[in-house]
Amino acid sequence: SKRKIAIKWVSRWIIMFLVGVGTALLAGAIHYIVEEIGHHKFDMLRNFLDRCAKEGCLYQPVLIWMAINLVVTITGACLVTYVQPVAAGSGIPFIKSYLNGVKIPGLLSLRAFVAKTIGVVLSILGGLACGKEGPMAHSGGIIAAGLGKGRIRFPGDKQLSFYDMFRDDHEIRDFVAGGAASGVSAAFGAPVGGTLFSVEEAASFWNQELTWRVFFSAMIACFGTNFLISAFSGHPTELSAPGLVRFNVFPDLSFDLIEIPVFLVMAVIGGLIGAAFVVLNYKLTVFRQKFLRKKWIKVLEAGIVASCTALAAFILMYSVNDCTDKHPTDHHSITSQMFCDDGKHNSMSNLFLTTPEGCLKALLHDPYGTFQVVTLLVFVVVFFFLGVWTYGLSVSSGVFIPSLVIGAAWGRMIGIGVVSLFPEESQFQSDVGKYALIGAACQLGGILRTTISLTVIIVECTGDISFGLPIMIVLMISKWVGDFITTGLYDMNVEVCGIPLLPWEPPPLCDEVKTSEVMSQPLTTFQPVENVGKIIDVLKHETCCGFPIVKYPPEHALDHPGKLKGLILRSQLTVLLKKKIFCQQGLLQPSNIHLKDFRDLFPDNIKINDIHVTEEERGYVMDLTSYMNPTPYTIEASFSLTKLFKLFRGLGLRHIIVVNSKHEPVGMVTRKDLAKFRAEAKRGLVHIEHLKIEDI
Amino acid sequence: SKRKIAIKWVSRWIIMFLVGVGTALLAGAIHYIVEEIGHHKFDMLRNFLDRCAKEGCLYQPVLIWMAINLVVTITGACLVTYVQPVAAGSGIPFIKSYLNGVKIPGLLSLRAFVAKTIGVVLSILGGLACGKEGPMAHSGGIIAAGLGKGRIRFPGDKQLSFYDMFRDDHEIRDFVAGGAASGVSAAFGAPVGGTLFSVEEAASFWNQELTWRVFFSAMIACFGTNFLISAFSGHPTELSAPGLVRFNVFPDLSFDLIEIPVFLVMAVIGGLIGAAFVVLNYKLTVFRQKFLRKKWIKVLEAGIVASCTALAAFILMYSVNDCTDKHPTDHHSITSQMFCDDGKHNSMSNLFLTTPEGCLKALLHDPYGTFQVVTLLVFVVVFFFLGVWTYGLSVSSGVFIPSLVIGAAWGRMIGIGVVSLFPEESQFQSDVGKYALIGAACQLGGILRTTISLTVIIVECTGDISFGLPIMIVLMISKWVGDFITTGLYDMNVEVCGIPLLPWEPPPLCDEVKTSEVMSQPLTTFQPVENVGKIIDVLKHETCCGFPIVKYPPEHALDHPGKLKGLILRSQLTVLLKKKIFCQQGLLQPSNIHLKDFRDLFPDNIKINDIHVTEEERGYVMDLTSYMNPTPYTIEASFSLTKLFKLFRGLGLRHIIVVNSKHEPVGMVTRKDLAKFRAEAKRGLVHIEHLKIEDI
Repeated sequence: SKRKIAIKWVSRWIIMFLVGVGTALLAGAIHYIVEEIGHHKFDMLRNFLDRCAKEGCLYQPVLIWMAINLVVTITGACLVTYVQPVAAGSGIPFIKSYLNGVKIPGLLSLRAFVAKTIGVVLSILGGLACGKEGPMAHSGGIIAAGLGKGRIRFPGDKQLSFYDMFRDDHEIRDFVAGGAASGVSAAFGAPVGGTLFSVEEAASFWNQELTWRVFFSAMIACFGTNFLISAFSGHPTELSAPGLVRFNVFPDLSFDLIEIPVFLVMAVIGGLIGAAFVVLNYKLTVFRQKFLRKKWIKVLEAGIVASCTALAAFILMYSVNDCTDKHPTDHHSITSQMFCDDGKHNSMSNLFLTTPEGCLKALLHDPYGTFQVVTLLVFVVVFFFLGVWTYGLSVSSGVFIPSLVIGAAWGRMIGIGVVSLFPEESQFQSDVGKYALIGAACQLGGILRTTISLTVIIVECTGDISFGLPIMIVLMISKWVGDFITTGLYDMNVEVCGIPLLPWEPPPLCDEVKTSEVMSQPLTTFQPVENVGKIIDVLKHETCCGFPIVKYPPEHALDHPGKLKGLILRSQLTVLLKKKIFCQQGLLQPSNIHLKDFRDLFPDNIKINDIHVTEEERGYVMDLTSYMNPTPYTIEASFSLTKLFKLFRGLGLRHIIVVNSKHEPVGMVTRKDLAKFRAEAKRGLVHIEHLKIEDI
Repeated sequence: SKRKIAIKWVSRWIIMFLVGVGTALLAGAIHYIVEEIGHHKFDMLRNFLDRCAKEGCLYQPVLIWMAINLVVTITGACLVTYVQPVAAGSGIPFIKSYLNGVKIPGLLSLRAFVAKTIGVVLSILGGLACGKEGPMAHSGGIIAAGLGKGRIRFPGDKQLSFYDMFRDDHEIRDFVAGGAASGVSAAFGAPVGGTLFSVEEAASFWNQELTWRVFFSAMIACFGTNFLISAFSGHPTELSAPGLVRFNVFPDLSFDLIEIPVFLVMAVIGGLIGAAFVVLNYKLTVFRQKFLRKKWIKVLEAGIVASCTALAAFILMYSVNDCTDKHPTDHHSITSQMFCDDGKHNSMSNLFLTTPEGCLKALLHDPYGTFQVVTLLVFVVVFFFLGVWTYGLSVSSGVFIPSLVIGAAWGRMIGIGVVSLFPEESQFQSDVGKYALIGAACQLGGILRTTISLTVIIVECTGDISFGLPIMIVLMISKWVGDFITTGLYDMNVEVCGIPLLPWEPPPLCDEVKTSEVMSQPLTTFQPVENVGKIIDVLKHETCCGFPIVKYPPEHALDHPGKLKGLILRSQLTVLLKKKIFCQQGLLQPSNIHLKDFRDLFPDNIKINDIHVTEEERGYVMDLTSYMNPTPYTIEASFSLTKLFKLFRGLGLRHIIVVNSKHEPVGMVTRKDLAKFRAEAKRGLVHIEHLKIEDI
């Protein structure tokens, strides 16, 4: 009725508002905790280092540093590995896959939320070369899913339920789009970029109304985070910190046309380094999948990486003899004097005695002369390998910030080079930060192969639109250069995990391929009134998510396909079985089942093996006609793969029934079939051997 | 082959680059001409006015002003009315409809280009209350279509042809998306907003690759325009003017949380005034459609409006006695002393002796105290009615700038009010410009009901992302307030013109409606081998764009639908007839027709009545099997309207064949059928009585 529609409409907006608020609160909390505890950690280390540099007991702070990193990181790694492995990494590839239509079990669970949010705090405090921004998209998505379902499901089948208005796949996916957008928006202060991030992947479902809601939610998240972080710094109404990370305001960010060629060269460098990053990380991922499969080994590896990071940081601070008297721009920065004269500090300490984010700020904003070229060179090489090693660990961590740090470091080197080329032009000195920014953008483009949304995120992050143009150009060029060599890091991830993500377009030259060549056969079908025993056996042995219902003409043999009557989902069948909606042949079937039951049991975590049916009941029949979808989407077997692709993407399908010219079902095509075909059709770095994630 | 695909890929990028360059050149040229000639016009008038104010001959400048406006505007109106009427207005609703999948005859022709671009220059120079920004989207689209087709088609069937690689509907639409984005980007310096503008309407075709190309083109256009306009002002490498209109840089655009309530009130005001604008303009449009149908009357009306604008401007300058000694921020501004003391000038002249764009700049940037409240009040009332009257004239004109001017004027009034509430806080005085900006945004939201893309455009235009949040909020609120009363101006336009634009979502509560209820019947079908005479007769009498091909089973009567074999398009049939691809029954049909022929004759401006076939040939037969599409999209008659809608939007269809459960065609659904249903299902301001634009 109209009233119900109006209530739903209003509720959707309210929930989106709450999603934004929730994400902002989370972002604020993470920021506060990381900044406060991190500051104490590094302050303590600095004092220790300074004292021991004089007293000659430097082995002490190093061991303590390594021990802290080890313990904290191992805690975080245990949380992820044992509580919810899907919380590992940045979560962005998973969230994108989810929005693309792939179900990933546990992705939006309370466990994942706990592992993700606490895990990322521990990763940063554990000193890993990673960021807290990427995971915000995932966390935001989980908050949105929880608020959308109106339910918290605790481990052990207990749950708190508030409302059940929106418990269907489609609605939840819309909310998750809002949550992911809010997460990105809170992390980067980029509401437009966050919105694009969500809608570009779920574009088949783009609609104006939803986009507004997503945008609204992203806006609230950005605003809320801004408010909270401003409040922490004592000026709640000033609203000067729209996101967790922010390239802050560059005083004078203009560029001259003649600088463009330099930027282009930087873009090529970024693309090449980025491709190297992806290739190395791919090899490492394959190695991990082969040899580091045990959970405790994964946890141990994370601990080792964290300790090595501390050790590397110390060795660099110890060995690179770069003392500077320039003060860092950020007055909260922690620098160690080490062996420098009084009034000076070790410039490497400025990069390592801080979170990766603080390191990025230093590279972008510290004055000319803070870092020598050799310092930056050593730093960038070490940090590159640390970044490669860190990404893919079984911890909650983002790859945005490390990418930016690597790029900012070599970008700053190029800036220093430009200054030394024109020693008489002193205004170039203030431009080293600008080159660092361009370098950061190039590196991000080279590693992640930024999409439109990431481009907008960077531009919003910079806070200066007139500088957006060169940033866009370098992002595009570095993407092309990188794409020429390998796929991007996220795509590599998606392929290695075997997620059946649909590409934007059908593979080229597949107009000749017919649907019948990609469909799954043989097809398991049910009759409108089906034997309970057969249903149970089929569900136990088939992994398919939907079954066509056909009416066999009486005179035909049973192996001949009959007319298509409808489609019933696996999840519906399990609910019907669980509720025992069946009866002896000829009797009246019980109908004590409501839409609510289907909703309550969503998402289908009833396992078919948990359903017990007596031997007598196996002989009963189930009338499916009132539960099936009488008008499922179908495609003719003779249609081309291109058309099949368009249907899948355009309508956001998960499966489609293939019929012959007599409209009899002859097969099914699922996302997995399409993704498999894509992988086979494509020569490239990565080959899918086995699809590990179920596409239900 | 792979090589061909690679060449096509590269060519697409090159063409998109050229589209961006072309749009930038056009934008630069229009800007230069309007600024130069406009400056001379107003300078001359100012001198005349100042002299006559002393000598008492004020009737002379008024008459001259009115005469100039009359002549220039009538020239522009003639150009539009007699050369290509589709060039009237801003073109944005038309371009959006085109991207949505509606064909509008002549929209992308050379005539439209000439009428649009020269027309808009004349409209502005003719003193109308309109902007040159809206038409840029349309002009950019035409440039893109021309470059994409590689052909210029002159009136009288002559044409210059360069290449024909991309002469199909889909490719051209992609290029037009890029052109429209470039136009918007060049006009507002908003590459992201421009890209969104294009893709949000054509979202069913969104794909990553295309979006990148569109973005690239928008970027080039923005960059090029920036370069050209910077070059005009003598600093080509400074790149300080990213778009035609720019809210310029506000020195200190920060906001305090406590200002939000004021902004919200302003948003409500903007929504209300906007709704009033739409209602009045709707009544005027209906009046025009009923009574002002003759071409010369349309031209005359435009001339009258232009003269009245001049007269109103003079009367206001004459009667409102507001003298100020504050200098305008823009040193090129022209102000008249009129009856003011020496050293002062008439502040109303600051608003009228300039283009509407200059007026907007003055309202946003001139210092506190330049305008008195009463001046602004009188101005806003008069300009509001001039704006209502101007929009919908048969001239090329945009509604963006007038909307912004109205909003900026009352926004500035509110700013002055805030200052007088807190007389002791002098820092509020510098905020009047900020309130003018918010007012402008509110008014735009209220009149146009900004979509996501327009929001991004405004934010990019402001050039300051941290101020984006309040702008987003007011745009959303003013949209809601306005939507509560009427549809937006563009939607009203689309509906009044009867363009079958598909909405984002199916109308609510239509799950119960079956496809069979909206489809067109009876269906005209052809047989695989069809009689030429029948084909010609059908094409002459039916307006449908596609015909199912069915095979009748021999034993059935002819009125029984047969099995669906394929679909043939009207355009294909006309080409086949034109090329005389038919023969006597039993003979071998000529096959001297190539894909190139179908391309060359695209878009189908062969009229069926121009094809001459002898009486003997009418008895011949045409074998359609090798030309038909053997796998057209179909839908079952029992499917719900919701599913039908999703198919149309998701796949960007123009028509779909409705089949019964035996897969026999029983009807067709076109966009028009859907749009008609929508109009009937919706209670609202506007009712479609007749669909005037063909949906072929």
